[in-house]
Amino acid sequence: MLSEAADTRGIDLPIALVTELAKPAAAFKTALPLLQVGRGSYRPGQPDEQGARLAVKSLERAAATVGVGVADALVTGPVAKAELAKVGFDFPGQTEFVAASCDSSPEDAVMMLAGPSLRTVPMTVHCALSEVPGRLSVELIVNRSRIVARALREDFGISKPRLAICGLNPHAGEDGRMGREEIEIIAPAIAALRAEGIDATGPHAADTLFAPHLRPTYDVAIAMYHDQALVPLKALDFDQGVNVTLGLPVVRTSPDHGTAFGIAGKGVADPGAMLAAIRMAGEIAARRAAA
Amino acid sequence: MLSEAADTRGIDLPIALVTELAKPAAAFKTALPLLQVGRGSYRPGQPDEQGARLAVKSLERAAATVGVGVADALVTGPVAKAELAKVGFDFPGQTEFVAASCDSSPEDAVMMLAGPSLRTVPMTVHCALSEVPGRLSVELIVNRSRIVARALREDFGISKPRLAICGLNPHAGEDGRMGREEIEIIAPAIAALRAEGIDATGPHAADTLFAPHLRPTYDVAIAMYHDQALVPLKALDFDQGVNVTLGLPVVRTSPDHGTAFGIAGKGVADPGAMLAAIRMAGEIAARRAAA
Repeated sequence: MLSEAADTRGIDLPIALVTELAKPAAAFKTALPLLQVGRGSYRPGQPDEQGARLAVKSLERAAATVGVGVADALVTGPVAKAELAKVGFDFPGQTEFVAASCDSSPEDAVMMLAGPSLRTVPMTVHCALSEVPGRLSVELIVNRSRIVARALREDFGISKPRLAICGLNPHAGEDGRMGREEIEIIAPAIAALRAEGIDATGPHAADTLFAPHLRPTYDVAIAMYHDQALVPLKALDFDQGVNVTLGLPVVRTSPDHGTAFGIAGKGVADPGAMLAAIRMAGEIAARRAAA
Repeated sequence: MLSEAADTRGIDLPIALVTELAKPAAAFKTALPLLQVGRGSYRPGQPDEQGARLAVKSLERAAATVGVGVADALVTGPVAKAELAKVGFDFPGQTEFVAASCDSSPEDAVMMLAGPSLRTVPMTVHCALSEVPGRLSVELIVNRSRIVARALREDFGISKPRLAICGLNPHAGEDGRMGREEIEIIAPAIAALRAEGIDATGPHAADTLFAPHLRPTYDVAIAMYHDQALVPLKALDFDQGVNVTLGLPVVRTSPDHGTAFGIAGKGVADPGAMLAAIRMAGEIAARRAAA
């Protein structure tokens, strides 16, 4: 399928089929080494069961390979979750699958979005906006921020990471005039983090926190919900945004975009985010190997 | 006070005190024409009652002047709302005051944020995030979007404005899997707008709508809450963001930043947003005069 895709676009892509990954680095010099998990025909932009089965098998094989330490990192591509569910993939997403494959709890796997302008971590992700206030707790913010601080130190080489914690409400609630979550949940979580020696500040008004003059004042913005993190990341760094899973024993990154079936096979997609994801995975793996 | 401020910063600022504004344009050639409403001493970064009284008097005088057509537009600076409240200013903000001063309902005054990268209008503004879902209605979205479409035509010269309407929930709810406001409120509002001939699309996933490749596909993004509009605007256009009040008989703009008392008088503030606000007010006034 990859050869067919490359031919269609006039790309010269030598492929070396391998049966094990013990020494893949050498193969990279002359060809793209591939572990074949199945065959199929190239039909870009048309999700089907065959593609879903190949995606699941590839993910399983990749996770197993990285899990036993034969590979240093796992970079996943975007998947059509509804298609995967049809072929029995019983996880909300690839992150949860990867966590389970290395015997970690899904709560330990924390999604960080990273681009050249910004790193950001949402405390809640795939739930209705009306459910966000009820899902926030001191424990959630403290646990996830602790994982973030540790990963920034160990995986990103930031010796004293600065965490800027967003408020939930406009202007971070203006002292309780527009919501009390800052007073009752977010500020106590920040105090607990600071008591542990973590450089956490806030609650910050989210609308100004992502402005250019404030972005250099922190290493990561801790957001309270999906769009509070994803809107600025994609506005600023769409073509270079990486989704990196923190808190797991294995290194896992992914480009921060979807399947984009509408432009599949047309030769117009920007590979910047995938390249950035591969590069970041390599950097984290190298840092862990050197530790 | 302005002379004192200019002196402190070594700025040569000739001021011409005027008593009426019938022909101010001529005075601008040699000096800054000012209608004096009071006196005070220059104490940058220290909000006090004297400053608040001067701000209220200035606003009242300016609104009256523009209201009778002697001035073509009103550009307001940021104010410390808590200070204004102490001296009896009984409005949530300047926008509501301006609406009242020209006998309009506050519901008719719609705040649009505009910068070089983006125009966006939040449907709800200063309320807790938990209150947002309950405040959204088909009527609210239709009424405000109608005002926006008309203002883009008449004040911004966009003959067929394209309105991109955001979803409330992550990924615009994914067909109801993460919230039903898109199905029950936002999509019906879009259908009603389209039935009136307004080019409204959506509900769009907010996280991708503000990405660079999608921003050229619409003239304004209609957001559901404060930070959904303000986060991308300030991330992209902080130093040039203008707050423009749509739907009123008078033209009113403002720089989209706060008082910034912390840097007042230090010579480090960027006047870009104020310049952009003045420029936009002039352009809108010229377009209305030519209509």
